[in-house]
Formats: sequence, structure tokens, C-alpha cells
Amino acid sequence: MLEPHSQFGSLAIGWGTDENAVIEILGHRNAKQRIEIADAYKRLYDESLIARLQSELSGDFEKAVILWTLDPAERDAKLANEALKSVKGDKHLWPIIEITCASSPDHLINVRKAYCSLYKYSLEEDIDLHLAQHHSLRQLLVRLVSSYRYNGEDVDDALAKSEAAKLHDDIRNNQLHDDEVIRILGTRSKSHLKATFEHYKQDYGKTIDEDIEGNKSNDELIMSLLKVAVLCLDSPAKHFAEVVRSSIVGFGTDEGSLTRAIVTRAEVDMKKIKEEYKKYGVSINDDISGDTSGDYKNFLLTLVGWAIP
Amino acid sequence: MLEPHSQFGSLAIGWGTDENAVIEILGHRNAKQRIEIADAYKRLYDESLIARLQSELSGDFEKAVILWTLDPAERDAKLANEALKSVKGDKHLWPIIEITCASSPDHLINVRKAYCSLYKYSLEEDIDLHLAQHHSLRQLLVRLVSSYRYNGEDVDDALAKSEAAKLHDDIRNNQLHDDEVIRILGTRSKSHLKATFEHYKQDYGKTIDEDIEGNKSNDELIMSLLKVAVLCLDSPAKHFAEVVRSSIVGFGTDEGSLTRAIVTRAEVDMKKIKEEYKKYGVSINDDISGDTSGDYKNFLLTLVGWAIP
Repeated sequence: MLEPHSQFGSLAIGWGTDENAVIEILGHRNAKQRIEIADAYKRLYDESLIARLQSELSGDFEKAVILWTLDPAERDAKLANEALKSVKGDKHLWPIIEITCASSPDHLINVRKAYCSLYKYSLEEDIDLHLAQHHSLRQLLVRLVSSYRYNGEDVDDALAKSEAAKLHDDIRNNQLHDDEVIRILGTRSKSHLKATFEHYKQDYGKTIDEDIEGNKSNDELIMSLLKVAVLCLDSPAKHFAEVVRSSIVGFGTDEGSLTRAIVTRAEVDMKKIKEEYKKYGVSINDDISGDTSGDYKNFLLTLVGWAIP
Repeated sequence: MLEPHSQFGSLAIGWGTDENAVIEILGHRNAKQRIEIADAYKRLYDESLIARLQSELSGDFEKAVILWTLDPAERDAKLANEALKSVKGDKHLWPIIEITCASSPDHLINVRKAYCSLYKYSLEEDIDLHLAQHHSLRQLLVRLVSSYRYNGEDVDDALAKSEAAKLHDDIRNNQLHDDEVIRILGTRSKSHLKATFEHYKQDYGKTIDEDIEGNKSNDELIMSLLKVAVLCLDSPAKHFAEVVRSSIVGFGTDEGSLTRAIVTRAEVDMKKIKEEYKKYGVSINDDISGDTSGDYKNFLLTLVGWAIP
């Protein structure tokens, strides 16, 4: 039984914030429990927990706690909206690829519902609006966002093999924005796509993402997003390990990407991400500890501690 | 409190079927109650109510009772699947247009979920499969099926006016399968589209469906389906009054269309359909009575008696 009124009393009555309590309490509650805490907080103090956290916390720590406390569908709707408003390069659209390709079909539907409630436009309307100048990118993203994939294990292996051949033809002929590429990646089930990518590797000697990367297409944006889509569909843990690693290596830290990867995956596949991360010769905990500090660091390490496979 | 065991005892123990009891009981229960009856029947007799109805009833009466007894999302998934398997002309695809344009966004999502459960492929995968030869039709249907429209009342009136102009340009230039037509009809909210169609009429003197019909495009299939889509988005009751009327007038009766229109709309907007029907100078009850007979007639008239606006 949660007791939000004793847990959050100090937040509500303005004695200053106990950041450790925020980390300890929220950082160890699953999505359903966090929503219950936020509901109870609202009932007891007649104010939104999110608004209170916003006024009491600051910086990267604040952003991470807020993202973590939001309902996951609402959180992803906000991430998608921010992504569309700040398109500066391929990485800014990654959140949309992640939501469409590394989430369950039901979660994606919930994100679309939350998006309509928050913004009074559908996510696909906003893609059309913000990417009006980029026809094939729009086509790709709208189809990914609109998918409701069959979520079972049944796979027609001959079909997977023939679609691997189609993908191979289009990639070799620099037809990355061909309707068939978008159709296959945008509608097929994840089980089917895993089988397709496996056939691709067996039949053509390279993985599909290697071939996409080696493609001579002029459209680098489509190329890089397709590669991320394939990775998110096939092996989300690999993708998110890469997001965390690249947010840390090099000059400075990309806190936005780091926070997003840890917060959105803590309850999904963090254990797998930690396994993947070992290939960099360092643990994800050590990398985070070395590049962040204070409450932000403690909060991320708490979330990384989630042991969900 | 429903008592399925006394109500359906005669069905279960094989003393022959009391068709009047089927009509009286099922015909007066809403979707939630019918699902409860089917669940209770399954528990009590260890067999599916649908299977029993299939073995006890026959002909058009059987088809109508089965469609009515199915969960509405599952029913529409089956109608969409039949439509795709039997494409012979524009009318065969009407069920898909109706499900995508004359249903609520949430119902459409439930139909897609039911489709995946029943057929182990998504509805959009099956559209791609069955309409592989018809590129623009596929594009249109996949976008309609994949929509999750904002369901509120907020409308940007200037945007609606400018999109009316875009639609007008494309229709006048025989560009019915232009991306913009599909984008506007496939993503905008119904409130926005009603405003758009109203601007169309005010600014260009004719309604959009009149203009679509007068279009010189060679693609009659796209033309007729777009017209149905516009009607279903703008005024579903008009469309379904027309479906009922045209299933009755002329030689013979199109029982498939008649049953579909009555069964799928009885709980949605039957009162409005009856109002619309008056324009034909006859009541919907009289038309149905004149063209059908027996249990089938009695069942349809019971459903038409639903007084939902």
C-alpha cells in the first residue's frame, strides 16, 4: 500500500525538497504505481505532482524525474511532439522511430490517443505539417506511426525470404524510399521482420543495416532513419545501448538522449541493454557515473538498477 | 439480470429452435448484453452460442443473427476480411470505407485489434495483399484504415478553407489520387472535415461529392470510393439510408448490403437513418416489409426499432 501523503508531505508543504526521497520513492515505482502516486497526490494536496516537481526541481534531474513520472503514453506523445518541433537532423527524429518500432503495438496506439488529447491534432497530422517539404520522410513516418502490427509469433517463412529479396533489390538500387520498403517495414509483424532480416543476412552475406549504411542514396536522412528503424524492430536493446554510449562518448554529454534512453527503457529491457553495453568494454553504470553528477546521476543509476529483462 | 439458461434452453437441448425467442431476446439486447449472453451460454452449455445459432438457423436470417451476436469489433473485422476476399466492384469495398469513415476512432482501433487476433495478419497487410495491383486504391485504403483521428470539436477554420481549395484543385484537375486528397481525408478530424466540406460548397457552388462524381478521372473505382468516404465522414446516416434503399429497389434484394446496414447501425444512428429515409417517400419499415419475409423480416424490423439517434 502506497502512502503518498507521508512520502510527499515535504514536497507539498514547502519545506524544501528532499531529492533523495524523490529518487528513492519514484525511482522504485513502476508506471502503474507512479500514476497512483500522482493521483493520490492530486487528491490530497489539490495540485498536480508534475507541476510541483517542476517548481521544486531543476535542470537535467527535473527533466528526467518529470519524464519518469508522466504516464508512459503521455510521455512518449510529448517526446514525439518535441521531436517534430525541433527537427534539426536525423537524431531529432529518433524518438518517433523508437516509439513506432521499439514499442508494442498497443503502446503505440496509446501514444496516439494521448497525442490527440494533448495537442488536439493527431500525431500523423503533425508529421504532415512539420515535414511538409520532405515527401518520402513523411510517407515513411506516417506509415510507421499508423501501424498496428500483428503481435504474434506466426511467420510465413517463404514470404519472409521473398521480402528479404525485395528489400535487397531496393537497397542495392538506391530505392530506399520505394513503396515496398515502406510497406514491409511499416506493416509486417516483428516476428516476420526478424525472420526477413535473418534471411537477408543468410542470402546476401551482409546484414540489412550494413547494406542500408553502405547505400549510395543521396537521402542521408531517410538512410539513417531506416537504419534506426531496422535496429529498433530487430533488436531495441542494441539501439538503446548505442544511444546511451553515443550520448556519453566525445565532448560533453547529450543529456536529452541519455535521459530518454534510460527513462523510456528502464521498465522495458534495461537488463538486455546492460548486456549489450558490455561490448563497449565498460559497464553502463560506470559510463553514467563518469559523465553525470549529483541527483541526476543518482536518479539515472536507480533507473538502470531496474532488473527487467 | 439476464438469464440465458432459461432463455436459451431450447436451443441447447435440441428441441428445435424458437426463432421468435431468438428475435425477441437477442434483438432487444445491446452489444454489451449480447456478449454477456454469449459468455453465459458458453459457461452453461460448454458450446459457443454462435456455433449453435449457425447450426440451428439458416439463410439470411442466420447471417443477420450471427452478425448481430458477434462482438461489434469482431463483426467488422470479419466484414472487412470478406470484403477484401471478394473484390468484384466498388460496392464490395464499401464495408471497409464504412468501418474507417463512419465509425469512431476507438472502434476502428478495436476492429484492427480483432482483425489481428482473427487472421494473424493486420488489416493493412491484407489490403496490400489483395489490392497489390491497384496502387492508389491501396494507398487510400491503408491510410483510411490506419487513421486515428482527433475526435474533438476544435477546428482551425482558415485551415479548413485552404484545404477545401486544395481538394477543389485536385478534383478539377482529375488528381483524385493525389497525396493531398488522401492526406486530408485520411488524417483530419471529422469536425475539421465537416467544416472543410461546408467551405467547399460555399466557395465553389457544388458539394464535394457532386464534384467527385462529375470528375473525368478514368479511375472509377477510386472515384466512387472517395464519394462514399466523403459521405461516411460527413453524414453516415445519408450513406446508410442510400445503402438500404438501393439494396431494395430494382430487381431482387441485395440481402448482404441490407443486413450489413441494419445490423451495423441499429445501435449507432438508426433514428437518423429513418429520418433520412423519408426523402424516398416511404418509411424504411415499409420498404423492408415489402421486400423481405419471415424471420429475416421480423428480425430486421426489430433492429430498425432501436431508437438511438
